[in-house]
Amino acid sequence: MPQRITYTNQVGAALDRMLASTDCTSLFVIADTNTSRQVLPRLHSVRLRQATPIVIPAGEESKGINTLADVWQTLSDSGATRRSVVINVGGGMVTDLGGMAAATFKRGIRFVNVPTTLLSAVDAAVGGKTGINFNGLKNEIGAFAPACEVIISTCFFDTLARQELRSGYAEMVKHAMLNGAQAFADVMNYEPDGDEPNHLLQLLEASVAVKQRIVEQDPTEQGLRRALNLGHTVGHALESLSLQHGRPVPHGYAVAWGLVTEAVLSHMLLQFPSTDLHRLATFVRQHYGTPGITCDDYPTLLHLMHHDKKSRQGEVNCTLLCQLGNPVLDNVIAPDDMHTALDITRDYLD
Amino acid sequence: MPQRITYTNQVGAALDRMLASTDCTSLFVIADTNTSRQVLPRLHSVRLRQATPIVIPAGEESKGINTLADVWQTLSDSGATRRSVVINVGGGMVTDLGGMAAATFKRGIRFVNVPTTLLSAVDAAVGGKTGINFNGLKNEIGAFAPACEVIISTCFFDTLARQELRSGYAEMVKHAMLNGAQAFADVMNYEPDGDEPNHLLQLLEASVAVKQRIVEQDPTEQGLRRALNLGHTVGHALESLSLQHGRPVPHGYAVAWGLVTEAVLSHMLLQFPSTDLHRLATFVRQHYGTPGITCDDYPTLLHLMHHDKKSRQGEVNCTLLCQLGNPVLDNVIAPDDMHTALDITRDYLD
Repeated sequence: MPQRITYTNQVGAALDRMLASTDCTSLFVIADTNTSRQVLPRLHSVRLRQATPIVIPAGEESKGINTLADVWQTLSDSGATRRSVVINVGGGMVTDLGGMAAATFKRGIRFVNVPTTLLSAVDAAVGGKTGINFNGLKNEIGAFAPACEVIISTCFFDTLARQELRSGYAEMVKHAMLNGAQAFADVMNYEPDGDEPNHLLQLLEASVAVKQRIVEQDPTEQGLRRALNLGHTVGHALESLSLQHGRPVPHGYAVAWGLVTEAVLSHMLLQFPSTDLHRLATFVRQHYGTPGITCDDYPTLLHLMHHDKKSRQGEVNCTLLCQLGNPVLDNVIAPDDMHTALDITRDYLD
Repeated sequence: MPQRITYTNQVGAALDRMLASTDCTSLFVIADTNTSRQVLPRLHSVRLRQATPIVIPAGEESKGINTLADVWQTLSDSGATRRSVVINVGGGMVTDLGGMAAATFKRGIRFVNVPTTLLSAVDAAVGGKTGINFNGLKNEIGAFAPACEVIISTCFFDTLARQELRSGYAEMVKHAMLNGAQAFADVMNYEPDGDEPNHLLQLLEASVAVKQRIVEQDPTEQGLRRALNLGHTVGHALESLSLQHGRPVPHGYAVAWGLVTEAVLSHMLLQFPSTDLHRLATFVRQHYGTPGITCDDYPTLLHLMHHDKKSRQGEVNCTLLCQLGNPVLDNVIAPDDMHTALDITRDYLD
C-alpha cells in the first residue's frame, strides 16, 4: 500500500482535514521538549488541541527502552484503544520512537508523522522504519510499520541550525543521484541554506518520491531498498570515526563525504561519468568541507566498514552507480580500491 | 502468505530438515525453565544442539518487558544478525514473547514456533499474534508477525496435567463449531484425556486449519478474524470473575463455558439448532464441570463484558452461530438476553 504523503506548509489545516475523515476514538500527540515548545504552538490545528500530549526529553539519548515504556504507559493509562491515533511531531528521534510505540501498542495502532527537520522529512518519517537504540546500537530494536499519513512541510525549518539543514540536504543529494540527471542538476543548483520554504518544499517532494518508489517495491529491505544505502557504507564509517576521535560530525556531513568516495568508486569500477563526480565533489566541498582524515585512519575506517550491519560476513559492500539514476547493488570493494578512493576523496575535499 | 505448518511427532528431524534448507547465520532457541528441562533433551535435533539457548523463567509473570529486554540483550550480545533464526519451544508464554522479541530485533528476524502445549499448538503458536503483558493487561504490547514455520506435535503433551489438556481442547471445540457438522462430531466423539497422540494430531491438524483459513483472510483482525472470538466474550468475563473471587480457572475451562452460553444465545437469536446445543452442553458439563456462578454474579459479568477490549464503546458484542460452520459477527446482546442465556447455561451445567 503506498504511503499517503501530503506536502503543505498549512500543516494544522492538513491535520484537521485528515483527522476529520479518520475514524478515531482518541488522539495523542508525541513531541520532544523542543518541538513541544517551538512547533506545537504554531500548528493551529483545532483537533490537536484536544489530543493528549506525550512530551519526551529531546536528544538521541531518549531514544531507548525507558522512553518507549513511558509512552506505552501513558497510552495504556489514558485508555488508548485500537482505534486511537498517535501524531508524532518532531525529528527522527520522535518519529522513530513514536512510530515504534504505536506499532506495538495493542499490536499496532495508527500513527501520523509530522517531521519538523529536513533530515526526518526526507528520510526517517517516510518508509515505515521505526525503532529505538538498544545495547549501544542504533535502531537495534524496531519494526517495519508505515505511518498512515505523513505531512511534510518546510515551515518549521526556521527552528533549525544551518548545519542541521545541510545535514538533511545530503540525503536529498543522495536521492537525486539515485533519480537521474535532471533531479541531480536541480539539487546541485539549489542553495541548501536558502530560505525559500516553498521552493525547498518542491525539491523535497521530488526527493521523497524517490525513496517512496523504492520502498514500495521493497518495504522490508530484502533487495532494492539497499539502493538507499548509497554513500552510507563510507558515511557510517566516517561518522563512527568522528565519534571515536571525540569530534562528532552530523550524520548528513558524513553521508555527503561518503557520497563522494562512493562516486569515486563508481567511476573507478563502473565508469560513472567524471563530470558528474566533479560536480558532486565541488558541491560537497563547498557546503560540507572536508572529513579531515589522513591515511593513518584507513585501517580503522576499513574495520568499521567490515562491521557495518548491512555488510555480509566481513566484506565491504557498497551500493554504487553506473550513471545517475542507475544504482548497482552489492559491490564488494577490495581494500586497495577503497584506499585509492579515499585518497582521491581527500584530493577533492581537502 | 500462508503460514507453513508441519504436523509431526518426529520434531527434531522436522527441525533439522527445515533448518537445512534455511539460509541462516546463527541459531537461537528460546525455552522456559520447564521446557528447557523436559522438552529440549527430547528434541533430537542435530542443529539445535549448536543453537545458543535463551532460557526464561516459566510462568505468565515472565511475559513482560523485563524478560523481553533480557532476550533482546542476549541476541544483541551474541551478535545475532538479520539472517539469524529463533526457535521458540514452549507454551503460549514462550511463543508470544519469543515471537515478539524476534519480530522487533533489528526490525524483525525469522522465528519458528514449536508449541509444547495443546493450547499453544491450537491457538497461540499459529496466526501471527505475538506480545507481552504490560501495565497489568494481557498482550497490551505486541506485533502481528507470523512464524516462518510452526511445527505441531502431540508427543510432548505427556508433560501436561490433564487440566491443561482439557483447557487446550476447548479451543478445538470452538474451531470445530466454526468449521461445520462433521468437524463438530469428530471433536465431540474424542476423549480429550485420551492418550493416542497420533489420533489427536489428526484432529489438531483439522482444527488448526480452521484458524489458519480465517487468519489468512484477515491477518490483522479487521473483520472475519473476530469469528475466532466465539465463546470468548462470555469466557473472558468468567475467567476475570474467577480471578476476582480468588479461585482462578484455566482459560480453556472459561472458554468452554462461554461456548455454551454463546450457543444458547445463538439458539435464542439466530435459531442455532437445539440438538447441537444439547450435545455441546453435555460434553462441556462432562469434561469441564460448572462455572459455579449465581445470579448475584450477573452484574459483575456484564460489567466485565462491557469492558472487553474487543467490545466497542460499552456494548456487549458476541460472535454467534446460525448453524455449525456459519458464524455471524458483531451481535450486540441486550442485558436481558444475556441474563436468560446465563440462566440456561446454569441449568445445563450445574
